[in-house]
Amino acid sequence: MGLYVQKYGGTSVADLERIQDVAKRVSSYFQNGDDVVVILSAMAGVTDNLIDMAKTISDSPDKRELDVLLATGEQTTAALLALTLRSMGYPAMSLLGFQAEVITDCHFGNARILEVGAQRIRDFLKKRTIVVVAGFQGCDPRGNITTLGRGGSDTSAVAIAAALEADICEIYTDVDGIYTADPNVCEKARKIESISYDEMLNMASLGAKVLQIRSVGFAKKFNVPIHVRSSFSEEEGTMVVSEEPAMESLVVSAVTHDKDQARITLKKVPDQPGIAAKIFSPISEGGIVVDMIIQNTRSGGQTDLTFTVPKADFKRALEIEKGVAVDIGAEDVFGDEDIAKVSVIGVGMRNHSGVASLMFNPLAKENINIIMISTSEIRISCIVEEKYTELAVRVLHNSFGLDRED
Amino acid sequence: MGLYVQKYGGTSVADLERIQDVAKRVSSYFQNGDDVVVILSAMAGVTDNLIDMAKTISDSPDKRELDVLLATGEQTTAALLALTLRSMGYPAMSLLGFQAEVITDCHFGNARILEVGAQRIRDFLKKRTIVVVAGFQGCDPRGNITTLGRGGSDTSAVAIAAALEADICEIYTDVDGIYTADPNVCEKARKIESISYDEMLNMASLGAKVLQIRSVGFAKKFNVPIHVRSSFSEEEGTMVVSEEPAMESLVVSAVTHDKDQARITLKKVPDQPGIAAKIFSPISEGGIVVDMIIQNTRSGGQTDLTFTVPKADFKRALEIEKGVAVDIGAEDVFGDEDIAKVSVIGVGMRNHSGVASLMFNPLAKENINIIMISTSEIRISCIVEEKYTELAVRVLHNSFGLDRED
Repeated sequence: MGLYVQKYGGTSVADLERIQDVAKRVSSYFQNGDDVVVILSAMAGVTDNLIDMAKTISDSPDKRELDVLLATGEQTTAALLALTLRSMGYPAMSLLGFQAEVITDCHFGNARILEVGAQRIRDFLKKRTIVVVAGFQGCDPRGNITTLGRGGSDTSAVAIAAALEADICEIYTDVDGIYTADPNVCEKARKIESISYDEMLNMASLGAKVLQIRSVGFAKKFNVPIHVRSSFSEEEGTMVVSEEPAMESLVVSAVTHDKDQARITLKKVPDQPGIAAKIFSPISEGGIVVDMIIQNTRSGGQTDLTFTVPKADFKRALEIEKGVAVDIGAEDVFGDEDIAKVSVIGVGMRNHSGVASLMFNPLAKENINIIMISTSEIRISCIVEEKYTELAVRVLHNSFGLDRED
Repeated sequence: MGLYVQKYGGTSVADLERIQDVAKRVSSYFQNGDDVVVILSAMAGVTDNLIDMAKTISDSPDKRELDVLLATGEQTTAALLALTLRSMGYPAMSLLGFQAEVITDCHFGNARILEVGAQRIRDFLKKRTIVVVAGFQGCDPRGNITTLGRGGSDTSAVAIAAALEADICEIYTDVDGIYTADPNVCEKARKIESISYDEMLNMASLGAKVLQIRSVGFAKKFNVPIHVRSSFSEEEGTMVVSEEPAMESLVVSAVTHDKDQARITLKKVPDQPGIAAKIFSPISEGGIVVDMIIQNTRSGGQTDLTFTVPKADFKRALEIEKGVAVDIGAEDVFGDEDIAKVSVIGVGMRNHSGVASLMFNPLAKENINIIMISTSEIRISCIVEEKYTELAVRVLHNSFGLDRED
């Protein structure tokens, strides 16, 4: 008997039939004597439709009002699941974000959770009630409705699990777990049984498709075990947990890739204090997220500077930097959209020397040129030409022994 | 310069184009220097669709959860109008029922307003903001979402107007006012310029199509002037206000009819104390609303008792009374669905004797048999055979001089 927080994504509640399936699963836990708190996303496609509707009103719809509109999606599924559970004879109650006291800052559209009160959830649980909470939404300290950004229901679930000190937070989705690589790219990719929070945090490009990466930070902070699994089967998925000694036996846990990359290079930038701020401030003011940054010192007090941005922001970033280049007296600005990032991730890396060469040699053998490199404690990322992405993933998956069943 | 509370019904916000029209009207008041609080219904048809969805889950969906589901309808239109006003450059903010502090009792599905705090509305108005409030919804003292029953947005509007001491509460709808009779039945029906709260309260069957009758009680209690008008034109509609001396010059203000009537008769009921309770308790426990009740004393300590119920409840009520008849020893129970109620209404009635004969004579002249009669201070209602409904309305409209333009 335990306390389960279960989050179901949009495809798991896509229609009344799927909601009935969710109700069956939830009630089987409840009947087994477990307490269950369910966090729901909106029906698949609903959030996008609402955004489209708002965009026909205005190209840049007011963020506060857009949140009020979007919050209806999760309110609808929460009510429908509670109605379904009740029609099956189970005591179920829905709560909206503000009722569950999911208190956020006031960054409409991408709010961060400050605190989860959850008193009403606790009260309902004491009465052996199944609590259904609308995910993705909260309210700011003044009572305005906020939403947590794309995939925010994952963070709702983990934050509520943390507040309740739940035994586990199950994330039900349409894939059956986290893989050693994208199975569409690498047919030998295997489902990972267990992965650490830190590894997951470093797998944003692969993992974010399955789990909002912010939720993993929350889970790590409050040590909430996450079980990522499919709502379409009974199979075990992937556990995302604190680092365990066994994890270090593997040097690398997964290979990820991300084609949503473009790079911009400023050539012969004067090497003076404050130059970096002049280059990156206008980019961040434009709301563009910079990923990798590399600076090569040249002779004569000049330097070349290269950084990557999402493909969608490439043209805008290039325009901005053309202006910057004139201001700071850089010689030239150019860019490239045909690149991709390939990364290897593993907590075992910390205790193994020579991982970098284990990564670079197999790529060199296939004549894959490495354009940029960046490293963290448990991750090495290389920027390569986009056309080599799949080949690079397969080569690395094999060279780090991830193909082996063991 | 005044404070306007404007309520727009479902057809007035049926799509983004209609919402744009509402935004134009609202902003023209705002630009004129007036303060505006807008109360919205859900888009036409949305509430019915949500109810249908809930009914596919369960024949009798849980009322608390149904309210959570239904409340999304008004939340959507409130956000969409605020988005539209903002895209036009106006400062607009939406508030949901709980944010506007519309506190109700906890009768889910048909809650009554206990109190309207409206502090946040006042704060916004002070900052010259257009406030858009989701109608039809509130929350109970424990923070559960409630809805106010069909047409509840009217009551939201009047209650908020009362709390704010607004200069006027405008109810925008798809008809251009209250008529002396249903124009579909009586082509000589005229729009009423001004009608008293009490007359309106007595016009439930005609008026409820235009205005939730509960809102009129609220308006009377707090003396809120209501202006019922069309959102499709600039024309003046009908004012619903405190009684004015001029109103008494007319004996009758309107003729109404209601075909949603069925009658049930219990024959030879023992005339004993407590019999009425035995007859009507099971009916009210079944949630059936009894309208007229008439009792004729017979000889021998027995009485005949006839009452009317809505047509939809007729069969159920008849079944219940068949059981009751056996219990109390009544001789027979029978009923009739082919009846209608025709009423004349007017505050002027109080000072005119002989109104009853003014009503009965013209009906008799047309050979319309009066099956039941009930009277109030300012209304006389007759039950007639359903087939005579339209004829009776036209005859009475003419005999009370409502055809005359004056």
